[in-house]
Amino acid sequence: MTKTLSVQLGKRSYPIYIGHNLLLQPELIYRHITSIEVLIVTNKTIAPLYLQLVLNLLHNHRCKSVILPDGEQFKSLDILNQIFDQLLINNFSKQVTLIALGGGVIGDITGFAAACYQRGVPFIQIPTTLLSQVDSSIGGKTAVNHPLGKNMIGAFHHPKCVIADTNTLNTLNNRQLSSGLAEIIKYGLINDSKFFSWIKQNMPALRAKDPLILAKAIERACLNKANIVANDEFEHGTRILLNFGHTFGHAIETGMGYGNWLHGEAISCGMVMASDLSRRLGWLTIKDAKSISDLLKASGLPITTPQGMTVRQFMDLMSIDKKIKNNKIRLILLQGIGNAVISDDYPSDLLTATLKSFSH
Amino acid sequence: MTKTLSVQLGKRSYPIYIGHNLLLQPELIYRHITSIEVLIVTNKTIAPLYLQLVLNLLHNHRCKSVILPDGEQFKSLDILNQIFDQLLINNFSKQVTLIALGGGVIGDITGFAAACYQRGVPFIQIPTTLLSQVDSSIGGKTAVNHPLGKNMIGAFHHPKCVIADTNTLNTLNNRQLSSGLAEIIKYGLINDSKFFSWIKQNMPALRAKDPLILAKAIERACLNKANIVANDEFEHGTRILLNFGHTFGHAIETGMGYGNWLHGEAISCGMVMASDLSRRLGWLTIKDAKSISDLLKASGLPITTPQGMTVRQFMDLMSIDKKIKNNKIRLILLQGIGNAVISDDYPSDLLTATLKSFSH
Repeated sequence: MTKTLSVQLGKRSYPIYIGHNLLLQPELIYRHITSIEVLIVTNKTIAPLYLQLVLNLLHNHRCKSVILPDGEQFKSLDILNQIFDQLLINNFSKQVTLIALGGGVIGDITGFAAACYQRGVPFIQIPTTLLSQVDSSIGGKTAVNHPLGKNMIGAFHHPKCVIADTNTLNTLNNRQLSSGLAEIIKYGLINDSKFFSWIKQNMPALRAKDPLILAKAIERACLNKANIVANDEFEHGTRILLNFGHTFGHAIETGMGYGNWLHGEAISCGMVMASDLSRRLGWLTIKDAKSISDLLKASGLPITTPQGMTVRQFMDLMSIDKKIKNNKIRLILLQGIGNAVISDDYPSDLLTATLKSFSH
Repeated sequence: MTKTLSVQLGKRSYPIYIGHNLLLQPELIYRHITSIEVLIVTNKTIAPLYLQLVLNLLHNHRCKSVILPDGEQFKSLDILNQIFDQLLINNFSKQVTLIALGGGVIGDITGFAAACYQRGVPFIQIPTTLLSQVDSSIGGKTAVNHPLGKNMIGAFHHPKCVIADTNTLNTLNNRQLSSGLAEIIKYGLINDSKFFSWIKQNMPALRAKDPLILAKAIERACLNKANIVANDEFEHGTRILLNFGHTFGHAIETGMGYGNWLHGEAISCGMVMASDLSRRLGWLTIKDAKSISDLLKASGLPITTPQGMTVRQFMDLMSIDKKIKNNKIRLILLQGIGNAVISDDYPSDLLTATLKSFSH
């Protein structure tokens, strides 16, 4: 059964299809492609698994593909240019549709290529990891990394649709699965305490990839994300709450070198750090802070920072993140589970205390 | 005296200031900068002439500058990255304002950097060439080139204001001046036959850089552009007329290697070719076609194609331009002076005849 959610953005509204065997249903993707020109962007891991399936769907189209290396370290301007090369070598016009077939890296870089090629062409997200199905494929944030900062070069550009085929999760390894669970838990923490409790109860089933339980988690996560994005498309307000754990987490990803920590792993650790600061502020009980780190640990995620990250490195990297305003680092913090807030109103020595307790 | 025009785009509306000594008036730029962080982007030719003037205006700001090499061949992804490097090395936040100080290349690449840095930051255009004052600084089209096609990677991103200080034209060489005249003549041809006649009468004064006559030409050109952009921001309709001569011209620029022909030189030749095809279609009289090429020649512009461009090369390069729809090259053609139309409804052998008569 296919579940259809909608991201309500007026003229830019688009559906999210969730279900199994979606990549066997040509009619789903057909209705969102308006010309015969199609470029599929995928990577070396995903291509042998799912590229042929998507090519089969589009055998009536002039369909080309480009296969990028796999990993966050390849979400760069250089690799982006490989997509432009293929578009131009194939003489693709402003009517071309790009298809992102892969995880968050492929989605982000393909979306950014679509945003920029001839000043904007349509694209479709086919996320194949849990993390990209519940988070990065939805909401129109596209980007590449710069050596000095993650997602520093990008655009807002929405897909025409998101096709989340849960079959693709069968080939996901445990580390990738856990990485996706981090973003699912995030929705519970910022906005949906009932979902947090549900995840806690169903963690064994989630980690065992129980198809029904996984599909439920994806739907609830996507619904949360779709609502937040619909209310604040360009992140002028509440959408920033989706960055819970990300200012700390991006510092880890950049500091450790892109690709060494998976995004969800860094975010897990970042959420534990944000919870720790919230607890020091008296906004979160010790019990709730422990409940958060326990659930992340039970998801197979790291809850301590990597060796080698110093307080100074954290401060430097965090102060380059996009949440800076008037020289103060704005953080997303918790006033209880399910109640995230944006704040730069915290004593800086408490932030230092958190960083110290997590540094080596 | 400062003349202020406006590009009417609702929330994204912005003023164009035209006049002399504008770079000595801090209040003009101040009102459009909302934080203390400023990065000026300029090039090696312009920096010694005008960078200090702009730095003086902004001595209360945390103002850094980046000096790029000069020329169309440097409007590339690689050089774009130098701007991102500077933004990140200086730890500039999403509140930074970029300033494009230079000609069309600087305006296009700086605007694109502003469109992408942290998914969009404000920028200001200070065009220092005639061409950029009357055309590229207005309208929000930003881009870099790809070796296979001009302006293929870009975004729509409007400046907060355009400051066209006519003093900066004093240092313009004759070739650059003529290049700007090409775009001025373009407005007469597509939309404003009275302006075309006026330009014809005033050509000696324009080439002699008579300040009053130049200022009049700039105003009338900017007014034409501002109106067209206000009516069709994203080029879904009439704005495409502004590309008169550009499909042929871009082929010359790309085919000859970026930087060898100035943009206005290539557009001059492109307009003569488009006029030639219009004449072959019976849409333009022989007399008018001659009047067009005579005026371009009198402006110091080339009206014949460069050695070495073949019919096949033209066809290949033109078919990669952005005006392709359903595999037909849409051209902007003339049904008389001051009456441009978009058309893919022409016998292809007439296009071939035009290309043959202009090839070597």
